[in-house]
Amino acid sequence: MSGEEPLTQQQEPEQVKKPDEPPPVAAPAPAEAKPESGSSRPAAAEEEKTISYRALVLTGYGGYEKIKLQVKSMNKSQLKAGEVLVRVKACGLNFAELLGKQGLYELLPSPPITLGMEGSGVIEAVGEDVTNRKVGDRIIAMNRHGMWQELAVVPANRTFPIPEAMSFEEAAALPVNYMTAYMMLFEMANLRPGKSVLIHMAAGGVGIAATQLCQTVQDVTIFGTASASKHETISQGGVTHPIDYRTKDYVTEIHKISPKGVDIVLDPLGGSDSQKGFSLLKPLGMLIVFGAANCVTGQKKNLLAMAKTWYNQLTLNTLKLMQTNKAISGFHLGYIHDEELFKMTLIKLLELYQQGKIKPRIDSCYHFEEVAEAMKRMHDRQNIGKIILLPEPKKSEEKPKSNAEAAENAEKNEAAVSEKKEEPAEEVETEKD
Amino acid sequence: MSGEEPLTQQQEPEQVKKPDEPPPVAAPAPAEAKPESGSSRPAAAEEEKTISYRALVLTGYGGYEKIKLQVKSMNKSQLKAGEVLVRVKACGLNFAELLGKQGLYELLPSPPITLGMEGSGVIEAVGEDVTNRKVGDRIIAMNRHGMWQELAVVPANRTFPIPEAMSFEEAAALPVNYMTAYMMLFEMANLRPGKSVLIHMAAGGVGIAATQLCQTVQDVTIFGTASASKHETISQGGVTHPIDYRTKDYVTEIHKISPKGVDIVLDPLGGSDSQKGFSLLKPLGMLIVFGAANCVTGQKKNLLAMAKTWYNQLTLNTLKLMQTNKAISGFHLGYIHDEELFKMTLIKLLELYQQGKIKPRIDSCYHFEEVAEAMKRMHDRQNIGKIILLPEPKKSEEKPKSNAEAAENAEKNEAAVSEKKEEPAEEVETEKD
Repeated sequence: MSGEEPLTQQQEPEQVKKPDEPPPVAAPAPAEAKPESGSSRPAAAEEEKTISYRALVLTGYGGYEKIKLQVKSMNKSQLKAGEVLVRVKACGLNFAELLGKQGLYELLPSPPITLGMEGSGVIEAVGEDVTNRKVGDRIIAMNRHGMWQELAVVPANRTFPIPEAMSFEEAAALPVNYMTAYMMLFEMANLRPGKSVLIHMAAGGVGIAATQLCQTVQDVTIFGTASASKHETISQGGVTHPIDYRTKDYVTEIHKISPKGVDIVLDPLGGSDSQKGFSLLKPLGMLIVFGAANCVTGQKKNLLAMAKTWYNQLTLNTLKLMQTNKAISGFHLGYIHDEELFKMTLIKLLELYQQGKIKPRIDSCYHFEEVAEAMKRMHDRQNIGKIILLPEPKKSEEKPKSNAEAAENAEKNEAAVSEKKEEPAEEVETEKD
Repeated sequence: MSGEEPLTQQQEPEQVKKPDEPPPVAAPAPAEAKPESGSSRPAAAEEEKTISYRALVLTGYGGYEKIKLQVKSMNKSQLKAGEVLVRVKACGLNFAELLGKQGLYELLPSPPITLGMEGSGVIEAVGEDVTNRKVGDRIIAMNRHGMWQELAVVPANRTFPIPEAMSFEEAAALPVNYMTAYMMLFEMANLRPGKSVLIHMAAGGVGIAATQLCQTVQDVTIFGTASASKHETISQGGVTHPIDYRTKDYVTEIHKISPKGVDIVLDPLGGSDSQKGFSLLKPLGMLIVFGAANCVTGQKKNLLAMAKTWYNQLTLNTLKLMQTNKAISGFHLGYIHDEELFKMTLIKLLELYQQGKIKPRIDSCYHFEEVAEAMKRMHDRQNIGKIILLPEPKKSEEKPKSNAEAAENAEKNEAAVSEKKEEPAEEVETEKD
């Protein structure tokens, strides 16, 4: 399932960080070079030649310096049946990569490994037996890892066409956060009109996705924790009761507003927060634990934080559950292997996007060279919405796109898309048919 | 909430078991004795007199002999505001009473206590402030206990008018079993088209209710455990795959048919069966434990069975839940205190009944004198459907209604209702307006 396994991997000893240089990427094959637009095989011999591309590789566990920007090379003809080659335009940063960097994400193979679970881009080549994707298609791609690179090989069934109006940044922000929120709210829990939901880290990627999805159901009350500076934004986004978890006890605050508690708790924190979440549930309510963010304190693995989170982990027997009429569940997208479920969920999300009911909020965009800054921003909980990584090399004069600027871009997709068409790295888009 | 607390209780030293005698119950006040049909107060002084009635009282923990048929007396004028007096026509037997008899049902006050959580009958008097019920209404009544008596005092908001076509036996069979099944399937779990459900004890009261409710949703696959002799009946009732748990390992059998397992497990057994149920769940599936039937082996409290059930009780931490994407929950109707939820659920169930989508299956009807036989039948898992207790004294020539006869009655409600009208104890029905 790895996008890089079939490829020749040339790891450079030193981190590549040359933002001023042109991208070391071969020009895409022009569309007219293909004899048949529907053909799935490289037609001309010159296409067989090796192409190089940049990738963000985790080289060991530890601090940000363990993630290195490296140049790799591959041969398009190595594409296997059922695979597609994607020129990646934008990638999503997830909490899983913060955990992975510290060696705490058990689904990530040992380093060296290219990170990244989601991205968007344009299909540059298709392997045998791929009939539903063609060169030039704008797509969302998901993979177990390996999306943080300019060129990624992914199974065709893990790619999904994106609507015209959706920017690459939005597309890269959608899969992990929105699928997680959707499956939790509508597959595991049973969100219906009139219910109440506690969303921790309500300004984070899953938090904002969950807030938007809650609003697709009538009369849902949303309690959202976030630091005070983010309250205005999350209120505008739909959080009914923002709570500053840094200065107030959220259990007390929620009980003041709703003495009986809440119906659903989405808990990415783990440890003692799971216990508090359980105590907050109304009868017939459900706590969904989907992370252990409390484990991540500093930059490196913190054994004390881990032990504390583990020790305080909610452990319940069925008698206690019966006496309280409550449900607990765990959710981890990485352990879902049902391709049909992935597909149906993403199709549903793209429909909701087109109906204007959901819209990924982009917090900021960082070039690959700035990955440490991007991760630090998430680690320090500074983001409101999704942090995006851009494979395109940073231009020397360019300021990092973040905050207000990125938010503005997210609100003006079409403008953003047309703007990008002027940039050289976006030439591949002209291949679209 | 007890129906008997406000009443004078005259406990007889010996068990009353005189089926040949006429019922020691005062004749109901004729409707025309009331000056205003809407009046909620006893109008005439003669109504104030003490009336006596029969009740099934748990006198201590142990075998069937601990439940005694006693004659009590009360004064109608003792009715408090918000209460109604119900002449009970039929009562439901639940597993909770088997547990209660052994001292294993923690919600039941200490003996002596009148048993019974559900019943049906006719309203004989209404207390102050009761505006939505009137004398003569045919109703379902629920209470924490105290329904196994000829006259029961219950809060008016725990009574629900029953449809014309519904017999008293059906009405008494509905509340506990169908509310339990409904809340589990539609409030806790999220039963939707195409899902699969494992129903243990599929021929029991909750089992049959759950089977019928599953069929209100399209394409639900039902696995049901029951002994082989019941398979034909439960198949006809809608169980897709009946499994004989006595001769086969149900985990193996289910995996043969559905290698990925099931979406929902309804588990009234507890102990090691909860562990098996959890192992059978598909990702995003839910195990609902709603009993510990495995505790009940013999007639009396069995410490070994309890210890074994307790020891094998499913205990999970959130990490395990995350890694498997599963949910566990507990359900216990006795711990639900949300009156609005009760009301809405029962109204929904009565709608489904009137639409012909659900219909309680009566296994057998026993008179109060035969309560030991009734409980033994449930304890030995001989029933298919609900066991009903009738306050009406047994006539000497009458055979116990059971099995085929009772099933026939259940299919011919109207016949059953009209038949009962000929019996003297049913005269109260003529009060209906």
